[in-house]
Amino acid sequence: MGIGTSLIRVDAVEKVTGTAKYVGDLEPKDALVAKVVHSTIANGVVKSFDLEEALKVPGVVKIVTCFDVPDYQFPTPGHPWSTEKAHQDIADRKLLNQRVRVYGDDIAAVVAENEIAANRAVRLIKVEYEEHEPILCVEQAMKEGADILHEERPDNIVGHSSFQVGEGTYEEAIKEEGLVTLEKEYETQPVQHCHIEVPHSFAYMEKGRIVVVSSTQIPHIVRRVIGQALGIPWGKVRVIKPYIGGGFGNKQDVLYEPLNAFLCTQVGGRCVKLELTREETLACTRTRHAIKYKIKAAVRKDGTLVARTFKAYSNQGAYASHGHAIVANGANIFKQMYRDEKVLESESFTVYTNCITAGAMRAYGIPQGAFATECLADDLAYAIGMDPLEFRLKNCMQAGYVDPHTKITCHSYGLQECIKIGREHIKWDEKRERYKNQTGSKRRGVGMAIFCYKTGVYPISLETASCRMILNQDGSIQLQMGATEIGQGADTVFTQMASEVTGITEDNIHILTVQDTDITPFDTGAYASRQSYVSGMAVKKTGKILKNKILAYAEYMLQKKADTMDVKQNQIVDKDTNEILLSLGELAEEAFYSLEHCEHITAEATSQCKNNTFATGACFVEVEVDIPYGTVEIIDIINVHDSGKLLNPKLAQAQVHGGMSMGLGYTLGEELLYDKIGRPLNNNLLDYKMPTAMDTPKLNTAFVELEDPTGPFGNKALGEPPAIPQAPAIRNAILHATGVAFDTLPLNPEKLVLEFMEHGLIKGKGEN
Amino acid sequence: MGIGTSLIRVDAVEKVTGTAKYVGDLEPKDALVAKVVHSTIANGVVKSFDLEEALKVPGVVKIVTCFDVPDYQFPTPGHPWSTEKAHQDIADRKLLNQRVRVYGDDIAAVVAENEIAANRAVRLIKVEYEEHEPILCVEQAMKEGADILHEERPDNIVGHSSFQVGEGTYEEAIKEEGLVTLEKEYETQPVQHCHIEVPHSFAYMEKGRIVVVSSTQIPHIVRRVIGQALGIPWGKVRVIKPYIGGGFGNKQDVLYEPLNAFLCTQVGGRCVKLELTREETLACTRTRHAIKYKIKAAVRKDGTLVARTFKAYSNQGAYASHGHAIVANGANIFKQMYRDEKVLESESFTVYTNCITAGAMRAYGIPQGAFATECLADDLAYAIGMDPLEFRLKNCMQAGYVDPHTKITCHSYGLQECIKIGREHIKWDEKRERYKNQTGSKRRGVGMAIFCYKTGVYPISLETASCRMILNQDGSIQLQMGATEIGQGADTVFTQMASEVTGITEDNIHILTVQDTDITPFDTGAYASRQSYVSGMAVKKTGKILKNKILAYAEYMLQKKADTMDVKQNQIVDKDTNEILLSLGELAEEAFYSLEHCEHITAEATSQCKNNTFATGACFVEVEVDIPYGTVEIIDIINVHDSGKLLNPKLAQAQVHGGMSMGLGYTLGEELLYDKIGRPLNNNLLDYKMPTAMDTPKLNTAFVELEDPTGPFGNKALGEPPAIPQAPAIRNAILHATGVAFDTLPLNPEKLVLEFMEHGLIKGKGEN
Repeated sequence: MGIGTSLIRVDAVEKVTGTAKYVGDLEPKDALVAKVVHSTIANGVVKSFDLEEALKVPGVVKIVTCFDVPDYQFPTPGHPWSTEKAHQDIADRKLLNQRVRVYGDDIAAVVAENEIAANRAVRLIKVEYEEHEPILCVEQAMKEGADILHEERPDNIVGHSSFQVGEGTYEEAIKEEGLVTLEKEYETQPVQHCHIEVPHSFAYMEKGRIVVVSSTQIPHIVRRVIGQALGIPWGKVRVIKPYIGGGFGNKQDVLYEPLNAFLCTQVGGRCVKLELTREETLACTRTRHAIKYKIKAAVRKDGTLVARTFKAYSNQGAYASHGHAIVANGANIFKQMYRDEKVLESESFTVYTNCITAGAMRAYGIPQGAFATECLADDLAYAIGMDPLEFRLKNCMQAGYVDPHTKITCHSYGLQECIKIGREHIKWDEKRERYKNQTGSKRRGVGMAIFCYKTGVYPISLETASCRMILNQDGSIQLQMGATEIGQGADTVFTQMASEVTGITEDNIHILTVQDTDITPFDTGAYASRQSYVSGMAVKKTGKILKNKILAYAEYMLQKKADTMDVKQNQIVDKDTNEILLSLGELAEEAFYSLEHCEHITAEATSQCKNNTFATGACFVEVEVDIPYGTVEIIDIINVHDSGKLLNPKLAQAQVHGGMSMGLGYTLGEELLYDKIGRPLNNNLLDYKMPTAMDTPKLNTAFVELEDPTGPFGNKALGEPPAIPQAPAIRNAILHATGVAFDTLPLNPEKLVLEFMEHGLIKGKGEN
Repeated sequence: MGIGTSLIRVDAVEKVTGTAKYVGDLEPKDALVAKVVHSTIANGVVKSFDLEEALKVPGVVKIVTCFDVPDYQFPTPGHPWSTEKAHQDIADRKLLNQRVRVYGDDIAAVVAENEIAANRAVRLIKVEYEEHEPILCVEQAMKEGADILHEERPDNIVGHSSFQVGEGTYEEAIKEEGLVTLEKEYETQPVQHCHIEVPHSFAYMEKGRIVVVSSTQIPHIVRRVIGQALGIPWGKVRVIKPYIGGGFGNKQDVLYEPLNAFLCTQVGGRCVKLELTREETLACTRTRHAIKYKIKAAVRKDGTLVARTFKAYSNQGAYASHGHAIVANGANIFKQMYRDEKVLESESFTVYTNCITAGAMRAYGIPQGAFATECLADDLAYAIGMDPLEFRLKNCMQAGYVDPHTKITCHSYGLQECIKIGREHIKWDEKRERYKNQTGSKRRGVGMAIFCYKTGVYPISLETASCRMILNQDGSIQLQMGATEIGQGADTVFTQMASEVTGITEDNIHILTVQDTDITPFDTGAYASRQSYVSGMAVKKTGKILKNKILAYAEYMLQKKADTMDVKQNQIVDKDTNEILLSLGELAEEAFYSLEHCEHITAEATSQCKNNTFATGACFVEVEVDIPYGTVEIIDIINVHDSGKLLNPKLAQAQVHGGMSMGLGYTLGEELLYDKIGRPLNNNLLDYKMPTAMDTPKLNTAFVELEDPTGPFGNKALGEPPAIPQAPAIRNAILHATGVAFDTLPLNPEKLVLEFMEHGLIKGKGEN
């Protein structure tokens, strides 16, 4: 019972038997169907529509175009609202956009009695455009005189920030004699989340209010953004989130719920459903940001990192979404993960282009930042002939680290221990030596990467969570969280937490998996690896209140001081002797039905979190590179995590497995591609290459379990970190195996073969 | 804003546009269909089933018989649970009964993929019975050696009670010289509630628990009874109540939800729906009790009521349901409404028969009791030649009345004023005189009846209610009640109450009409005219807590003492100057998103009610009797109510209109009839004669608005009283018009013609 046990997921049976209810399972029988009309240019302006043929399609109820929507611009990212205007997200899109900024932009929508009619009408709508040349890369967007994509940002720059750690400048620092300097560019590609369940919602009106049932990570934020987009009070919107089939940050954006809500108001409040296709999901939702890092670094020959300076350029795509927050987050890992003896200079840009909008994705900019820092670490170690692991041990984050700007502190520190475990697992020292001088077409190598990740968004943004517990007549309770289960197991660990705090066994804790903004205590939702930390604090606080109310009632019943009693295993016991005094069921029955003193015992509380801590870890990998074929086989891989006390070891392991698998896809195959007019080339799961179970090697995990003093149960971030380190670890292993340093992702056969040819490992055509 | 205004129903638009969601609107697309197999005998035992042909029907998933159900007996009435075994309801039925006690008893059930298959299978099931002679009346059931219907009650008596007010005995009292004595029998008939929506539910399993969505007045009690019927912890059951199409007490019994829940467990937790037909609703749910009163009464010639003694015999039908509580409640009106100078002796019996089970119905035994007391009042007045109105004024309940047994007190008293208003409206004095000596075939008369009704069930049973309020970012709130909207307008008056207490305008109060036992604060539900009184107290208590939390937050924001501020019209104002300091929306936004002090402001509280009060009133009616045709035309009718402060005058009027219409049906036409084997003869709305709009005269209402000091807003019972007085008032008017005293209901043409022939007002066949 309680924390630290591997309780079977509370939703396990439902999920494997298919009875768990998702949006599609809840759709009313008579829902209308909405389909979005997407632009067929990437940059330009809609001049007019010809709806005549489309309106003739039997079953078409309503067609709404960008000329019909309210004149409100709204933001989409799932950030907590800020009462300070300067900190609010960029509101740069309308429900439907006349100014087209991406191939597939939302320009109109059809509502019909059924999907066939809706799709047919969509195809029959004719659009006249004013067409501009598409801007598909950051360089082009930042050019003097480039087409302006959003008039509020005439330079196409969404965000720009810089920071410095240490004194002086990089140029001053490298005046020191004997330094080895490097100048590098590292670049990551856009990829997509590919959650199983596509974005899906339905909306209807009830008592003059709009109800939206949606597959989202952030129901309370969806409510707010719908209010903003439609220009109505937020309380007029009700958002309900059932089970969802994954999100990974894509459902931390408010994607199509505002349009869905609006469409329902246009058909008299009738229920309208809006479910994207997979093709739309890949082309019209969000991607991981492609970021280019231009770096200079200087190192002493003894391995001391002396100075770094870098500029990061993040391709935002068409709309701001989470925008600059992501490249800025990625930049932080430079300062947090490594200490430059003299100075670190950082400058980051986020730039609008006509690419698919980039948004939040698991680990929020850190995989990109870590790709740069961890490739650089190896490249610097190579440059001075040092073991990359030793280089890291010498320069990496130390116990007690405090971020100089945010003051986030590393309250528990297991990084060195993680490195030690990984080193032993992969047999680092032996294999670094063994694989030194390979020849032949198949070569092996070992590589590593380290990482850190903060827990939640404090102090950059608000961290708050609420919880409610409701006692039943049999002594069981409902646990009602504002925080959301999105597949990660949140409901299971919250149940364990509640059990730990209240003394009620998990089988008597019925967690409500559905969040409903009308009744659910407020919480900002699932992102930033925050819930087990921040929302866990709310469970702890609420559980204590509930237990105190229970013991107060026990005092009334038993005429024995509350503070001499406790709740254990569903029993009221004497605190000292553990003697069972009363079952919780007996107490509850009396509390419900007492003619003298009746009380429905419930508890509800908000916990505001004003703390943060770093989780860290390392990835070690052994690869075998088939040079002629350009393929990389993962011989062995391990993620070692310092994520504090594990709430549920099996779930923790599963979380890491999922992250590693995602990281492998990111490293080896996934990339969204465009043609020259900005049209996605592979927005489907045949052409977009995600790893399948067949592609996935055995995934090893290990944990350094240290109680974090700030975590509600000694825990800290674990949701996102697992997906961070695979790309640089594998890239570094390939470097070890082949001597070739790949500086862009993904590391697919096409790229490897070309590069190996370049480096003479494969002979070109006509060569022998 | 607030109490006393005629706010338009909060659900008005939804109801008239058909968007309000009832059980049928919420059924999942793929629900299985259950149909009940009803016995075709009224008394006996099921010996065996032959299911062979039924099981062959394509689409049949499962057939369950009385031999397959858990061996638990359970009670069905919607009473609060009592922790004392002696006060618990009678558990006398199983999910399916082998011992058949009524024609149409539930003996088996079919679950199929669709309704056609289910119905076909039901028809193909063959049943072998051991058949007993049906017992259709109380006399037969109470006979020595009568067939025993429930082995726990070998005398067939469900309940027996007696009380006495005053000293000595009736027989001693009538020894006084010069008294006029009367001996009478009055008898009422069984009628049905005829709510628009038939009983309807569906059930499915979720995480090992059973969820039942049902059309019920009492979701929390349904949860409990399902737990009892299936022998599972109550917390394993979740009951959800959406909008319901009327109940009138029939949905204050737990009818088919336990069977529905059980059936779903028998098909692996798949969703199963169970919707009764109208025919089943009339034959297999509940009726108003038929009660026979045998009365002796003595009166002085000056009109002083000296003594009464009566025995009441209530026909319970097959199962105990609310049982003896109803005739006992009806008996109370004898002592409460009239004072006997010497003594009142009361004895009541509730008796099992093979009739349709009788249960709760609007006014819970009082219409029957009032029929007896009010017919008797007129009969006594006639016997001494006194004006019946004067007789009532002389003997009726006086201000400050205290029930000698329950100590329920008449805290506000408007009865005499009600009589005065009715007297003037109907022109009593003039018409009593004018209609004295009529001849001819059409004759007019005026009659009256008075009544009282307590408010809720305290101190007989538990009175408790809970409420929760949830603040939104725009300063609006959700109001979450355990109490249920069942068509009576509860949601509207709760909204007004919340507005009154919190200072938030009604348009910013979003009441949640759906009760869900997993999340809804506990309340026992809609019955006993309790909610606006008892649950209103919970709204008041919770609203104060919410307002205090709001003002505490205002104190934090404004650095101004909370007790110097108030909330008015959605604004925080200075208490003294009414100066607007802050809008509630601004406060809420800060409370949600403050980086310093974030709190989701909600409030939840239980209010236990330990009080009660009497509502009273009078009905005056003028009729024209067509003697040859035996028809009664209502020329004029008025209900005058002393129900305290009116929360919403228009809704109050509508409530009275509905009650009067129901009373008119009860008086003039409705009656469930049986053939000699106990088979219902008219269990359909063609043969069962409810009044339609065409049959309904103009309904006049008036109110004596006195603030009741115990009501949360000066209010007291109004839900049920309107249906009480029509029958005796009309009967007394017919007596006035024709001189014929009818002592049984209904007063339909068949009965009137026969009686008029008996009294020589119509000449028999062959007479001239």
